[in-house]
Amino acid sequence: MPELRKDLVRDNWVVIVADNALKPDQFPINRNQVSAHFDGSDCPFCEGREACTTQEIAAVRLQGSLPDSPGWLVRTVPNKYAAFNLEGELHRSQTGLFECFNGLGHHEVVIETPWHYQEIHQRSPEHIEHLYRLLRQRYRDLKQDPRIKYIQIYKNRGLFAGASQQHSHSQILAYPMVPGQNAAIGRYYEKHQRCLICDTIAAEIARKIRVVTETDYFLLLCPYASRFSYEAWIIPKTHTEHYDGISDQEIADLAVLSKAYIGAMMNALDHPAYNISINTAPVNNGEEKGYHWFMEITPRLMVMNAVEIGTGFYMNPVAPERAAQILSQALQDSCEVE
Amino acid sequence: MPELRKDLVRDNWVVIVADNALKPDQFPINRNQVSAHFDGSDCPFCEGREACTTQEIAAVRLQGSLPDSPGWLVRTVPNKYAAFNLEGELHRSQTGLFECFNGLGHHEVVIETPWHYQEIHQRSPEHIEHLYRLLRQRYRDLKQDPRIKYIQIYKNRGLFAGASQQHSHSQILAYPMVPGQNAAIGRYYEKHQRCLICDTIAAEIARKIRVVTETDYFLLLCPYASRFSYEAWIIPKTHTEHYDGISDQEIADLAVLSKAYIGAMMNALDHPAYNISINTAPVNNGEEKGYHWFMEITPRLMVMNAVEIGTGFYMNPVAPERAAQILSQALQDSCEVE
Repeated sequence: MPELRKDLVRDNWVVIVADNALKPDQFPINRNQVSAHFDGSDCPFCEGREACTTQEIAAVRLQGSLPDSPGWLVRTVPNKYAAFNLEGELHRSQTGLFECFNGLGHHEVVIETPWHYQEIHQRSPEHIEHLYRLLRQRYRDLKQDPRIKYIQIYKNRGLFAGASQQHSHSQILAYPMVPGQNAAIGRYYEKHQRCLICDTIAAEIARKIRVVTETDYFLLLCPYASRFSYEAWIIPKTHTEHYDGISDQEIADLAVLSKAYIGAMMNALDHPAYNISINTAPVNNGEEKGYHWFMEITPRLMVMNAVEIGTGFYMNPVAPERAAQILSQALQDSCEVE
Repeated sequence: MPELRKDLVRDNWVVIVADNALKPDQFPINRNQVSAHFDGSDCPFCEGREACTTQEIAAVRLQGSLPDSPGWLVRTVPNKYAAFNLEGELHRSQTGLFECFNGLGHHEVVIETPWHYQEIHQRSPEHIEHLYRLLRQRYRDLKQDPRIKYIQIYKNRGLFAGASQQHSHSQILAYPMVPGQNAAIGRYYEKHQRCLICDTIAAEIARKIRVVTETDYFLLLCPYASRFSYEAWIIPKTHTEHYDGISDQEIADLAVLSKAYIGAMMNALDHPAYNISINTAPVNNGEEKGYHWFMEITPRLMVMNAVEIGTGFYMNPVAPERAAQILSQALQDSCEVE
């Protein structure tokens, strides 16, 4: 059973997966920089290899096709190497300085397309809408379980973003505790009785210098204190605490926007590895008025080094104002080509 | 001038280097996974190329050799791409939500050996002692400046640890503010009137399961909540707040220990990229009784992914107890070979 161990020095929790420990030669990076799964020859996520994954939780399927068989567009399965399991209750143990919780939670893989060499942003807006709707459904289902306190939807694309599979996929991790990293959003609300993200939207629209683009429902900007070069946030303009509060109209808008933006970003930055994290409100944790979900897209052009590890300070060599200019231009250019 | 910008969502500070912004094709990683400086053909750190670096701050030199010329063993120079500069005073500016400080501080590169293909752990203990003594001297010099509040000594080895140069080197970064990440050490002292690191030493020696080895002056262990697989800490057994409190005897002991340990770790893990960070007390910041310096060595076998980016939770697939066994065995094996 995995454990959540208290890191007293950093005042944080670390997930230790004590079973299935990786041996020194099983890590994705080492002297060899490329993982075994970076070609399609034996990819378990491809259509036709459904037997290689764990059992399907949900899918967007052609009418008449059966679970765990071909005929799907998006498909979600338990992560074979899950960090957490939903077994029993959360319990804490402490021996002297050493405090831990059992790794109660849930971890699944959302396979975004049936085809190995087509990434999700290369698919149609309709296909991308299917993905966002399935994610909304899974978020709704998972938050019914009162043991779950936070649900993270995320994507690792490319080796330098921590992906161990090349095939286009996202993941959903349901945690038994609320991450402290974003707690400042809640403290801002307590202090000002206002939403930090709504205030940010207003301030950024007024200044324009970090706005990449704006649609009916979303603002796309490079945040003022970007931790990563060319980092961008896609924020719903209507105050919404949880990702599952997204409407069908917003999903249609987001599908078109994210397809265009990721394509333009990939061209402008020469197809980097990148991560997406959907930051959202805690669940089953009382009222969460201060939170406001948003999608954080972080190209991985630098490797985190000892500065970040030792101090927690991030170093970013590209001013977000400059990044916004470059990304905005790339987005305009790509729209003109179409 | 670089800026320290307040990240309101993460309640942290981000260093934005607005000048010299990297263009999209200037990043070390992208589609090409290897940097231009990963061979010795035009390395600015090699002996004989002193004119390629900024002007020497200090060095360990053969008698009679001149600054910025050959004849040195360890040499320290300002970082050409410094994150900070020591010009003027710290000043804060705020416009609405957007708060920043100027990037007041100091950043230097410590070239650890004159030879491109010899890493510091492959050198003699006497050479390594010269390095540790020079670092102590630089720490003492830098803390004389009351504008400096924290001094980090660190090392990035290999592309996957964020190194942009192959030639064996460390860095010193002097910050105008204290990183919040390690502030829990101070809070532990306030609460218990005891040092967290001293308490950790006692608890780990009693339990033995995470101890890799112990010398006259140091304990080497895999911490209970290791954020990285095979992470290890080398801790002075005598309570010492600042790195520059290290004695000559401790330096001699640490040189032998770190040489043997890094060599054994490199063999056991197939020569991974790794980071070293010396975590120490703030300077010019009143009394810092709770702090206790230690050296954190983190092999980089995984890439930080969207879990860490979005939640701040680290995932580690190797239990520290297992890592300590493997590393302890590797250290014993390497000592027997000698």
